[in-house]
Amino acid sequence: MAKPKRDSNAEERLETFGKEIVKDIRSNRNPKFIMTSRSRSNIEFDPRKGFLTLGDKTEERNFINTAQSKRFMQTVAIASKCHRFVKENQHTAIRGLFYQLKYSLGEDIDENIFNEQSESNPLIEDLEAALGLKREYLNLNATKKGVMAGNVKVVDMFGDERNVTDTSKLGRSGWAIPSDVDSNIEFTDVKARYVLVVEKDAVWQRLNEDGFWKKENCIMITPQGQATRGTRRLIRKFADMGLPVYVFNDGDVWGWYIYWTIKTGSINLAYIGSDIATPEAKFLGMTMSDLEQYDFLKKMTMKATEIDLKRAQEMLEYPWISIHKEWVEELKMVIKSKVKLEQDSLQGPRLTFIGDYIREKIAKKYWLP
Amino acid sequence: MAKPKRDSNAEERLETFGKEIVKDIRSNRNPKFIMTSRSRSNIEFDPRKGFLTLGDKTEERNFINTAQSKRFMQTVAIASKCHRFVKENQHTAIRGLFYQLKYSLGEDIDENIFNEQSESNPLIEDLEAALGLKREYLNLNATKKGVMAGNVKVVDMFGDERNVTDTSKLGRSGWAIPSDVDSNIEFTDVKARYVLVVEKDAVWQRLNEDGFWKKENCIMITPQGQATRGTRRLIRKFADMGLPVYVFNDGDVWGWYIYWTIKTGSINLAYIGSDIATPEAKFLGMTMSDLEQYDFLKKMTMKATEIDLKRAQEMLEYPWISIHKEWVEELKMVIKSKVKLEQDSLQGPRLTFIGDYIREKIAKKYWLP
Repeated sequence: MAKPKRDSNAEERLETFGKEIVKDIRSNRNPKFIMTSRSRSNIEFDPRKGFLTLGDKTEERNFINTAQSKRFMQTVAIASKCHRFVKENQHTAIRGLFYQLKYSLGEDIDENIFNEQSESNPLIEDLEAALGLKREYLNLNATKKGVMAGNVKVVDMFGDERNVTDTSKLGRSGWAIPSDVDSNIEFTDVKARYVLVVEKDAVWQRLNEDGFWKKENCIMITPQGQATRGTRRLIRKFADMGLPVYVFNDGDVWGWYIYWTIKTGSINLAYIGSDIATPEAKFLGMTMSDLEQYDFLKKMTMKATEIDLKRAQEMLEYPWISIHKEWVEELKMVIKSKVKLEQDSLQGPRLTFIGDYIREKIAKKYWLP
Repeated sequence: MAKPKRDSNAEERLETFGKEIVKDIRSNRNPKFIMTSRSRSNIEFDPRKGFLTLGDKTEERNFINTAQSKRFMQTVAIASKCHRFVKENQHTAIRGLFYQLKYSLGEDIDENIFNEQSESNPLIEDLEAALGLKREYLNLNATKKGVMAGNVKVVDMFGDERNVTDTSKLGRSGWAIPSDVDSNIEFTDVKARYVLVVEKDAVWQRLNEDGFWKKENCIMITPQGQATRGTRRLIRKFADMGLPVYVFNDGDVWGWYIYWTIKTGSINLAYIGSDIATPEAKFLGMTMSDLEQYDFLKKMTMKATEIDLKRAQEMLEYPWISIHKEWVEELKMVIKSKVKLEQDSLQGPRLTFIGDYIREKIAKKYWLP
């Protein structure tokens, strides 16, 4: 790997984006740009692909249009800021971008057209869709969350330095998954048999102490709750290397939904579906069927709340879930029995039981699609 | 450092705790234990010490007492589980402990006396206070959060392995601060001039990209919001090595309160005050006075909410804050002007301005006590 480089592709696309607008203006045309529509009606789930993506519908944003003029201006302002970030090879988070926009829109404009960050978020998504580029390539850092350990080396070309981290040598801490796992970073010496995703950090720590990933030779990732873009992308990258991906979450609608966002992507991020979804992923547990398999779990259940039950009902409607009869059954069991199961509860009989549960499920292929 | 060892002190104290109770029972006395009271009336702030601690008041918990009998039994059950964790050299989080208690209280007892985790939390604190031992030594992992980078090596005796991590070589990721930074872990080769605490991870990432800690030779820590026990303890440890500690947070009651918990500890954790408080810490910003110093910040302010203002009023009442006239002024300015300032806003003029702000504040000793 050479010296760290900025993504010239992003720079080029941003420049083309700007030039088209300037060309429109110079030709006395209404300045505009075209983007794939991110509206609900353009979100598609193709069972053969196995993930959520956008359809063919496009939308135009233009300037001379009372309903769109402000939004158009704001998007162009964002594009201009990102162009500078990319050129200067500096990153920031959307909160930093927001304050840059609040500070000044350019040399001659003192208008404050951004009052709330909530205004800029959907515009960044517009820009991503218009350019066909993820925000990571626009030098906008997404939230950083998630931890990993396993027989993997990370080569991170950061600043002027080449940092090599062996994620099998980080002890109790593990490796903190960054927001961008694509630019100037590589995962080498991947000597693992599979990837295990564990919803909760506390359970990851328990398994890490048991040396689970070492004994099993797997890569053990915790998204620490809902998975960030970075963590989902990393899982996708390991799947691309041919590693099976198993997900081990709470046995409730929230844990299951975390699984589904990893597997099929999410509605909000359908525009980058192929990049972050891992349709090959399997669900190890917790499931309602576990209550039959592991007798002691019967006394470990917690009561499902009204919100849990409502969410279960909603999930039954998602086509990417309802095509699997096993999942329909699970959701119906929640609605009927009104209980849930936390992954932590496997520690009931003894702290080390969690690992045995995972091993047994994998060995017997006792998983959900 | 030798092989990882369990904290024999904890084992001994837990055994003494149990033996005393058995002795009471055998002598036909009401079984009891004594602990330092954690009630509000026993929380003290001594300005000479500079942190919150517990006074001399004690409380007795005993068994033959309708108001205490269940609580007594629960605490003894927790002590028994922790004794086993310590003996077997295994850790879990309080959620894992909760399920162990739910599963079984012992060989002959099938009673379920724990229904909600909220019941076990205060009991763990009782036990910590009764034993004079932090939960980390009872092998209970606290929440893990926070990231660090700097010229520091971490020697982590984890499992059977000695892991050495150079936290200056972790690139974009940084080193994930674990829940326990005391047992079987050491911080060596500390070659830094000071510690900089940065509230938000996004701002930490920005400074990390600028190589701020490298250029300044400091240790840069982000608690990622409110600081965990582990992060606070780590800051204390660096202060014990003689390093000055500077805190850089949002200019609002929440950012300021994060500072105060780092500096003086917190009411809830007063029983371990000396272990986690860093009274030497200085506050670099953001402050309301910054609005005078940095003219552009005037247009970066956000509106303070009613909750912000109410909290500011409450903070004026805390004796550890009200002894500092600078802080009284800051809080009064918030109440009067009804605005707040985020640390991200320093990126307004240019992304690299944050570093300049910190450097200037340190150079000119322009900080709050």
